[in-house]
Amino acid sequence: MEPFDLHIIGCGSANPTGRHRPACQVLSTRGKNFMIDCGEGSQTRFARMGLSMKRVGHIFISHAHADHCLGLPGLVCTMSLLGRTAQLHIHGPQELEPFMQTALATFCPNLEFQVTFHTVDTRQHQLIFEDRSLEVWSLPLRHRVPCCGYLFREKPGQRHIRRDMIDMYEIPVSQINNIKAGMDWTLPDGTLVPNERLTTPPTPIRSYAYCSDTAPQPSLPAIIEGVDLLFHEATFDQDNEFRARQTFHSTTLEAAQVARDARVGRLCIGHYSSRMDDEQKMLREAQSIFPNTVLAAEGLTLNI
Amino acid sequence: MEPFDLHIIGCGSANPTGRHRPACQVLSTRGKNFMIDCGEGSQTRFARMGLSMKRVGHIFISHAHADHCLGLPGLVCTMSLLGRTAQLHIHGPQELEPFMQTALATFCPNLEFQVTFHTVDTRQHQLIFEDRSLEVWSLPLRHRVPCCGYLFREKPGQRHIRRDMIDMYEIPVSQINNIKAGMDWTLPDGTLVPNERLTTPPTPIRSYAYCSDTAPQPSLPAIIEGVDLLFHEATFDQDNEFRARQTFHSTTLEAAQVARDARVGRLCIGHYSSRMDDEQKMLREAQSIFPNTVLAAEGLTLNI
Repeated sequence: MEPFDLHIIGCGSANPTGRHRPACQVLSTRGKNFMIDCGEGSQTRFARMGLSMKRVGHIFISHAHADHCLGLPGLVCTMSLLGRTAQLHIHGPQELEPFMQTALATFCPNLEFQVTFHTVDTRQHQLIFEDRSLEVWSLPLRHRVPCCGYLFREKPGQRHIRRDMIDMYEIPVSQINNIKAGMDWTLPDGTLVPNERLTTPPTPIRSYAYCSDTAPQPSLPAIIEGVDLLFHEATFDQDNEFRARQTFHSTTLEAAQVARDARVGRLCIGHYSSRMDDEQKMLREAQSIFPNTVLAAEGLTLNI
Repeated sequence: MEPFDLHIIGCGSANPTGRHRPACQVLSTRGKNFMIDCGEGSQTRFARMGLSMKRVGHIFISHAHADHCLGLPGLVCTMSLLGRTAQLHIHGPQELEPFMQTALATFCPNLEFQVTFHTVDTRQHQLIFEDRSLEVWSLPLRHRVPCCGYLFREKPGQRHIRRDMIDMYEIPVSQINNIKAGMDWTLPDGTLVPNERLTTPPTPIRSYAYCSDTAPQPSLPAIIEGVDLLFHEATFDQDNEFRARQTFHSTTLEAAQVARDARVGRLCIGHYSSRMDDEQKMLREAQSIFPNTVLAAEGLTLNI
């Protein structure tokens, strides 16, 4: 099966600490590295994790806060130094575009590749990108500035041919794609062979939802229902709920409630405030509501 | 004596490596941290070196290349998160100002302190800042974009009073400042006591010159003559002189020639290209011309 791996590049929040780096993740699948947020210094750790910059074709930015975007100009400059020619797509809220345009005009005026900015309407849950095998949807979040998460979902594949059955019923090659698509087969004597005898089910699709930064958002669980992995910010532990309210962030329990309500497979929490120094306590809090929770950490890879 | 310390935050060049960080230095003296260049991620290592962000009042940027400036927006955002109210001054070529304005408008629209940009004419050798004890001069350099170095020089202090002599000659307190300023003293019987008997010489002034990035610049040695410490970029070893010519950089030997011609006290080389993996060879090359040379390294502090 193709890998569908989430790499955590940084999982801190705005105020830098020695413990964590600002937000950045990479979802690797089918030879492509989809980057999600890009805080200052992300390119360094990205390279240190052995990830290929060439394979980054699309970057998805949740919102125009410094700790989620300031690594972008340096990343593009480095791509240029490495001789990139392939187009780069940046998806994000419109607030980000003037910054990126000025940064590139100042620091990379002679880029050999095109950087295309795609404005994401953070208030809408809509399809913002697709290729042959993957869809990316925006997830409206509630923060101090326009902000959205991103849902990455594989497209359903076709059913798998049972070679033995195809041979037994002498089905011609020309019909294979129809059979994969679900067609039944009629024998010369008129007997119908149902598709289920000729094929096995398609590979289950996998999905990942990234939700940072956000205050509790009632509409969220319904639109991420059943994802295999949810990253949900838990900037604060439960004792600091009042800070979460002040800053439009979530607590451990709130993140876990989303995971429970959305019946996700696994929850990863992160975006830790610099005030939080006991992450095990945060983990225990989240697990009290949603046991299958893990802590984000720089360098962590989660196979989905 | 007041410290006059150079801290190396980063001494790599544009193409990131695991070995070095992009350009950033801090000159610490009299409780002030003067920052020189600010590559991506500088704030993190700055904090790790135990330096105080509060004490950064002035930042001097040599040129608008990514590896010398991309840490600025994040630094200002962090200062804001830390509750700064004191004005911040950024000195640099005019190319940098639109980027900084857009970055601050995007990421810190409600700063509680003023950020003032001072355009430096990189073609002129002129005084661009002074306080009670220090002058900062621009040093025209030759690079692919407008670029200058910076010369930090203490102002000459006053002569030191010899308390024993003041007492012996019964010189009144009201005259002390005149004596410090160099005045002789006349005794009641008309005898002249020369100032040299009443005072000791002022503390020697100290100076530091930062020269990065530059191709050999014939006018440079004369204007940095006799500085105690010179940082001069040596992006390439001598085998890669042709690359230095292509990219408007200097080699080890060229950096050492500047140090020799300017009769500086000590030379520190850095801004290593990602192609250079034998820094000891670079050191030997520079020392063949200027023995008192050291290699820059992240975390290094040089007392001047």
